[in-house]
Amino acid sequence: MAKEKFVYSFGGGKADGKADMKNLLGGKGANLAEMSNLGINVPPGFTITTEVCTLFYENNRNYPEGLKEQVDEAIAKVESIMGKKFGDTENPLLFSVRSGARISMPGMMDTVLNLGLNDETVQGLIKQTNNERFAYDSYRRFVQMYGNVVLGVDGADFEEILEKKKEELGVTYDTELTVDALKDLVKQFKAHIKKETGEDFPEKPEDQLWGAIGAVFGSWNNERAIHYRNINDIPHHWGTAVNVQTMVFGNMGENSGTGVAFTRNPSTGENEYWGEYLKNAQGEDVVAGIRTPKPIAELEKEMPEIYKQLTEIFDKLEKHYTDVQDVEFTIQEGELFMLQTRTGKRTARAAVKIAVDLEAEGLIDKKTAVLRVEPQKLDELLHRRIDPDADVTLLAKGLDASPGAATGKVVFDSDEAAEMGEHGEKVILVRTETSPEDIHGMAAAQGILTSRGGMTSHAAVVARGMGKPAVAGCEDIKVDYKAGQFTTPDGTVVKKGDYITIDGGTGNVYLGEVPTIDPEMDENFEKLMSWADEFRTMQVRTNADTPEDAELAVGFGAEGIGLCRTEHMFFDEDRLPIVQDMILADTKEEREKALEKLLPMQKGDFKGIFKAMGERPVTIRLLDPPLHEFLPDHDEILVELTELKVKGGDEAEIAEKESLLKAIERLHEMNPMLGHRGCRLGITYPEIYEMQARAIFEAATELVKEGINVHPEVMIPLVSHINEFKLMKEVVQKAAEKVISEAGVELEYTIGTMIELPRACMTADEIAQEAQFFSFGTNDLTQTTFGFSRDDAEGKFLAYYLDSEILEKNPFQVLDQKGVGQLVETGVTKGRSTNPELKVGICGEHGGEPSSVKFCHRIGLNYVSCSPYRVPIARLAAAQAQIENPRA
Amino acid sequence: MAKEKFVYSFGGGKADGKADMKNLLGGKGANLAEMSNLGINVPPGFTITTEVCTLFYENNRNYPEGLKEQVDEAIAKVESIMGKKFGDTENPLLFSVRSGARISMPGMMDTVLNLGLNDETVQGLIKQTNNERFAYDSYRRFVQMYGNVVLGVDGADFEEILEKKKEELGVTYDTELTVDALKDLVKQFKAHIKKETGEDFPEKPEDQLWGAIGAVFGSWNNERAIHYRNINDIPHHWGTAVNVQTMVFGNMGENSGTGVAFTRNPSTGENEYWGEYLKNAQGEDVVAGIRTPKPIAELEKEMPEIYKQLTEIFDKLEKHYTDVQDVEFTIQEGELFMLQTRTGKRTARAAVKIAVDLEAEGLIDKKTAVLRVEPQKLDELLHRRIDPDADVTLLAKGLDASPGAATGKVVFDSDEAAEMGEHGEKVILVRTETSPEDIHGMAAAQGILTSRGGMTSHAAVVARGMGKPAVAGCEDIKVDYKAGQFTTPDGTVVKKGDYITIDGGTGNVYLGEVPTIDPEMDENFEKLMSWADEFRTMQVRTNADTPEDAELAVGFGAEGIGLCRTEHMFFDEDRLPIVQDMILADTKEEREKALEKLLPMQKGDFKGIFKAMGERPVTIRLLDPPLHEFLPDHDEILVELTELKVKGGDEAEIAEKESLLKAIERLHEMNPMLGHRGCRLGITYPEIYEMQARAIFEAATELVKEGINVHPEVMIPLVSHINEFKLMKEVVQKAAEKVISEAGVELEYTIGTMIELPRACMTADEIAQEAQFFSFGTNDLTQTTFGFSRDDAEGKFLAYYLDSEILEKNPFQVLDQKGVGQLVETGVTKGRSTNPELKVGICGEHGGEPSSVKFCHRIGLNYVSCSPYRVPIARLAAAQAQIENPRA
Repeated sequence: MAKEKFVYSFGGGKADGKADMKNLLGGKGANLAEMSNLGINVPPGFTITTEVCTLFYENNRNYPEGLKEQVDEAIAKVESIMGKKFGDTENPLLFSVRSGARISMPGMMDTVLNLGLNDETVQGLIKQTNNERFAYDSYRRFVQMYGNVVLGVDGADFEEILEKKKEELGVTYDTELTVDALKDLVKQFKAHIKKETGEDFPEKPEDQLWGAIGAVFGSWNNERAIHYRNINDIPHHWGTAVNVQTMVFGNMGENSGTGVAFTRNPSTGENEYWGEYLKNAQGEDVVAGIRTPKPIAELEKEMPEIYKQLTEIFDKLEKHYTDVQDVEFTIQEGELFMLQTRTGKRTARAAVKIAVDLEAEGLIDKKTAVLRVEPQKLDELLHRRIDPDADVTLLAKGLDASPGAATGKVVFDSDEAAEMGEHGEKVILVRTETSPEDIHGMAAAQGILTSRGGMTSHAAVVARGMGKPAVAGCEDIKVDYKAGQFTTPDGTVVKKGDYITIDGGTGNVYLGEVPTIDPEMDENFEKLMSWADEFRTMQVRTNADTPEDAELAVGFGAEGIGLCRTEHMFFDEDRLPIVQDMILADTKEEREKALEKLLPMQKGDFKGIFKAMGERPVTIRLLDPPLHEFLPDHDEILVELTELKVKGGDEAEIAEKESLLKAIERLHEMNPMLGHRGCRLGITYPEIYEMQARAIFEAATELVKEGINVHPEVMIPLVSHINEFKLMKEVVQKAAEKVISEAGVELEYTIGTMIELPRACMTADEIAQEAQFFSFGTNDLTQTTFGFSRDDAEGKFLAYYLDSEILEKNPFQVLDQKGVGQLVETGVTKGRSTNPELKVGICGEHGGEPSSVKFCHRIGLNYVSCSPYRVPIARLAAAQAQIENPRA
Repeated sequence: MAKEKFVYSFGGGKADGKADMKNLLGGKGANLAEMSNLGINVPPGFTITTEVCTLFYENNRNYPEGLKEQVDEAIAKVESIMGKKFGDTENPLLFSVRSGARISMPGMMDTVLNLGLNDETVQGLIKQTNNERFAYDSYRRFVQMYGNVVLGVDGADFEEILEKKKEELGVTYDTELTVDALKDLVKQFKAHIKKETGEDFPEKPEDQLWGAIGAVFGSWNNERAIHYRNINDIPHHWGTAVNVQTMVFGNMGENSGTGVAFTRNPSTGENEYWGEYLKNAQGEDVVAGIRTPKPIAELEKEMPEIYKQLTEIFDKLEKHYTDVQDVEFTIQEGELFMLQTRTGKRTARAAVKIAVDLEAEGLIDKKTAVLRVEPQKLDELLHRRIDPDADVTLLAKGLDASPGAATGKVVFDSDEAAEMGEHGEKVILVRTETSPEDIHGMAAAQGILTSRGGMTSHAAVVARGMGKPAVAGCEDIKVDYKAGQFTTPDGTVVKKGDYITIDGGTGNVYLGEVPTIDPEMDENFEKLMSWADEFRTMQVRTNADTPEDAELAVGFGAEGIGLCRTEHMFFDEDRLPIVQDMILADTKEEREKALEKLLPMQKGDFKGIFKAMGERPVTIRLLDPPLHEFLPDHDEILVELTELKVKGGDEAEIAEKESLLKAIERLHEMNPMLGHRGCRLGITYPEIYEMQARAIFEAATELVKEGINVHPEVMIPLVSHINEFKLMKEVVQKAAEKVISEAGVELEYTIGTMIELPRACMTADEIAQEAQFFSFGTNDLTQTTFGFSRDDAEGKFLAYYLDSEILEKNPFQVLDQKGVGQLVETGVTKGRSTNPELKVGICGEHGGEPSSVKFCHRIGLNYVSCSPYRVPIARLAAAQAQIENPRA
């Protein structure tokens, strides 16, 4: 049996490993090996494999046999390449020792630099560098770092000793410390270590090295690393590799330097070298920001030969990895070393441009290009947003209720907002919460800010529907209508007429007019999306309640409407009084009279939406919310009534208010989310659904007569039992057949149901025998499956759950695949078991969230439906899902 | 191949069929055959099988070949036994034609009597009976019945003709019609039939017979029969049999008669013949109530020979069927005919006594005795109830919130109720709804009546906990506190001090003092329950929050506590202010201070309960309800505040009220059922659960020191995610270990969770890795699975759902096995898959409902837990479940 290989060398133009050995060598080690193989100059070194880490833990923190020999061999190789010797007093080789897992775990594990220094080797370093201060500063840093990381002495102790020294000398910066001071610090550090640990500081470089290797392996199981892996679903058995690499120094004079660079502009995606460097500096100086680094282009003038080498390496790396690289390099006395290469992070705009460009350059194919852009990031491109370069004053933070940035004058009253809007003024409507009576103000405003309510509050839902930026539930601000102002926790007072800017994508509220930038959908975007459409097999529809939204969504590539909520039409200012008449009707006749008035209005709505969608399917959900949502606020009426009574007001007025209050109380529910809503309304008041069905089919048949072949799909909400569906299907079918036969046209339509209750999932086999389609309403399904009221949870305990990582993700944003998803899958499987033709989609907000879209693809849904602005995200995610998991 | 047998004859001391052929012959036919075989005199006849019904429908309403011949043969047999001929003009045989399905479907299908009469045969009947009036009246009835049932003429038409005739003659009763009048009616009926149907009335007896047979088979698929089968889960393919039987007449003089009887007293279960008879009468006369029937005992004097025959038959039948029989008989001119026998319905008390007596008499074994009593009916025996013989005036009807009957004076104020209670007065507390501030009033009252709130309203839950009768959500009554009265829909005004009686088992509210009777648990009951305990394999525990309830339940046979709700202890008058301090605390320190005050109180509660339960296991659920439940009513404070403001009240008082109102509003939730409650409280305020755990374990260790080996099981409520459970388990474990080690005793305890959310069921495999037991909280699980808020549903749409049969049963009373039950089963299977030792029970109200208990047995639960009064019901149901479906 061949001896097991635990150590992989690299450097000197060759390497034992390569890029695809990340599992064994970790990301950093594999890429260092790859660069070596490409003939790129990396400081030579070696990688101890992740397998050793696993064996280390399996064997009670003992190393496998043979490791020591392999490490010694690897050191010898490095010595031979570098012409230096580890532990040598004349020309000592120094090492860095770093962790390197399969997947980057930034800052989680330990690093030791300048390893190999002691009282003797430091002399060799002085001889080599002719720089006593540099050598002792390196030595001081090493002892400090080693003492902390390997020997476990509190880092703050060293900082304290250092500060004391600076005070003694009356200096401010570390750089002002003299050679003597540094020498003394080394002594003091060592003495402190002895005091704390009872052991002398290890002077032998070999001991230092094994100490550092042990510390890195040990750090795989430190608390924060375990925690990080738990959160990020990284298996604990993977282990980390250890990279031992020759130290190089960019701070050895004017022919030295260090820098970081991207092979293309990561902000715009332009094909230009991009980065910064500093002469005579170490990596941390670039980061620390004491000196201002220069743009990479200047290197061409300052060090033309190095620049040429560097850009050749950029080109080589990009071609080799077929993607933009993010590199670190050091120039040590005129010699260029590459320290790291990895895939470069980039903005959405850059990601799209780079993917399209690389395809044009023949480096990648279309599928790869489609996989290169994170769907979620497209959001940045689809809304106005805060200029990232703008100076901002953060006032408060609320919920990111509806994306986009907006600026305007603060207004507290909806009538005033509407009036100012008419005069062309830009306003932000600020309310504790909004109600149907604020619709005209919301429509006129640039954006909405509320101090109460969650992601499904009236303000949030309506704003998303309108595609208007909104920050909801911003409990930081206290709104005082009477004074015409709001205050923030730090005491800032914002008055009516002051400018603010809100960012509905982050929930931030800023003072003043912050510059915003336009959406960035260019031809690269269009090209990438067209490729996505070539690959995906799952349809993407939109949730839209108005012709405007429908048109917007079609522009974004929607292939139909998956959810048209009819109740939003009821909130319209002109209609609300009629809706209230309907609700407060004492008899069926009165109610039918009010419904007759609503019929032509609803019909008009549907015609508009059908026209906007043409022959694309349109799923219309019948009335869903509890009726009391359409009534005035209970507490306001109660206060008015009490005031009237105490003041001895008009008898008739009191009686009227009392009767209104009683009606509101009659409709009051303890838990409206689980109350008299959805098809329960249709069952108890069939005349409402009957009117809506008539409106739908009258609209549809009129359009058929105009030559537009519309496809209505009527959806019954909140079904828990097959009998509910049967009854409501009958009502709709009867109305449909009557209207169609009277119109004398051909019209295809389907009747299906929203699956949004656990019971519907568990009995989907029964329901599918009657329903032609299922649309999973995962918003409500998440509420009932978890037993979370979204309105309450998001403002209260859910934030705590996310902060303390009880839940990894907000289940209202990212579908909980284990719980809610399992119910969805159960529903799909059971539904198709009795009705193989069943069309199945999803219309909760998850329909526009990439990981949820991919889940929907995996379990075989026919379509996802989401808000217009998320349609491109869903298209891209669906394409990626098909490329990653092809299905027929 | 043998010719298929479609027709089964009976009579003359023998029969083709027997009792166990119900599937083929229907219940009635099989029992008639059985009686014939026993040598009992039944009017001879024959049964056409249910198979013929099936073939009839399969063959487009055509009869199978050979049927006619078999019917003719069967008629010939009857003719030979009776010495009469069908269609004979001298001595005609008349038939009744009746349906008869496997399971009785009373009144759903058709019947024709006196078949075989026409203008000629009626003369034969006159000759035989010497009673022209009787013969023509029979003829008239036949034409009327046949015209309606077989020929489809509206029954009201015949009634109209009859009424007109009576008007003409100036008489009131049918019995006053003369022979001529009857003759004329026959003519008029026939003429009307001809007019309506265009066909002559069939004169040939054979045609009449086939018409009637076809009508009975046809009635299997009439609308009401289909509907009945849908509701009662009777398969449509079963079909009905047709029974053709010789007519006998009890109205042929003083040596004729008819009666119904039970072989034992169905009310008390006493072993005595019980029933009524009328001489010279037909069955309908007994029912119609025009003449008062005599007790069966008198028959011994009036017709000693008949009485002897009859009681011999009773004894024979009871011995044969091994159960009490409900029989119908007719005496025709001194000859006794048995027309029907079936198992007799009985009261709970009688059922228990009969089962125990029959076992003692050796007729049945213990298993059979246990199966003979419907568990649900035991409820009658366990509570005071309205005397069934009392005259009552029903005032209103509400929800049957807590069983038992109670009488007392109406009181609207809890302080007043408490005071009157102290003076020994019996009061019924009447409120729109109750709150924690009413506890002392509720405790002092005989019963509680509320006009609002559902089965889980405060009033209902607390009353059930106290074992006190309550009617909740009685929306019929309007309570007017100011006037000190309530009114009912018919305008009745009930004032403070008036007596009312409530029946919490039915929801009825009566005016005045209605007599009530005591619970009836006698030695028969005890004997039957001890047999049940011998057989059952599933444990029965109780839900109890107080030592009193715990003792009561142990008396009823509870083997432990399955659910002890700790919050009910928080509602105590003395504690509520401290609880409110805890809730309104601004800092953790203030909260802990309040909790320290509560600790000794909770500890005392637990000691009491542990003492009552001894070594039996006690499952204690940590705090569950949303905190705002402990705060004063929001609207009341709002009104008070508004009044103060308008009146210009004291500044300090206004400020205090404002701050209280704000605190209430801060805790307000849109959907508290899905809000900040259960373990979500424990997670955000771990100090609460920590205090409760300390109280539990301090109580437990102190009892261990006293020598009582208690078994606490701590239950974390409302877990949706394994991480919630883990965190809370840690808190409890830490507190437990600390207390136990400080006490220095041995104490076994377990930590488990309530499974009451769909997500917990779907991820039970994860949760079971950490939990030692599951207790299914099917109340909340039903709410979330259906998406029904119980508080809202029961007062609103659920009643409609039940009335219109969208739902067959109230899922809060009877476990919805298809939906909720499927989730429970999923949870059990998944839980045991990762933790085979997992103990699993149920503690929702379904734990005391027989069909749900049987379901729990089937899916392998270890125990059910229910309120004390339902413990015997659950024990009996569990025993029956094991006898019906034995498990290891």
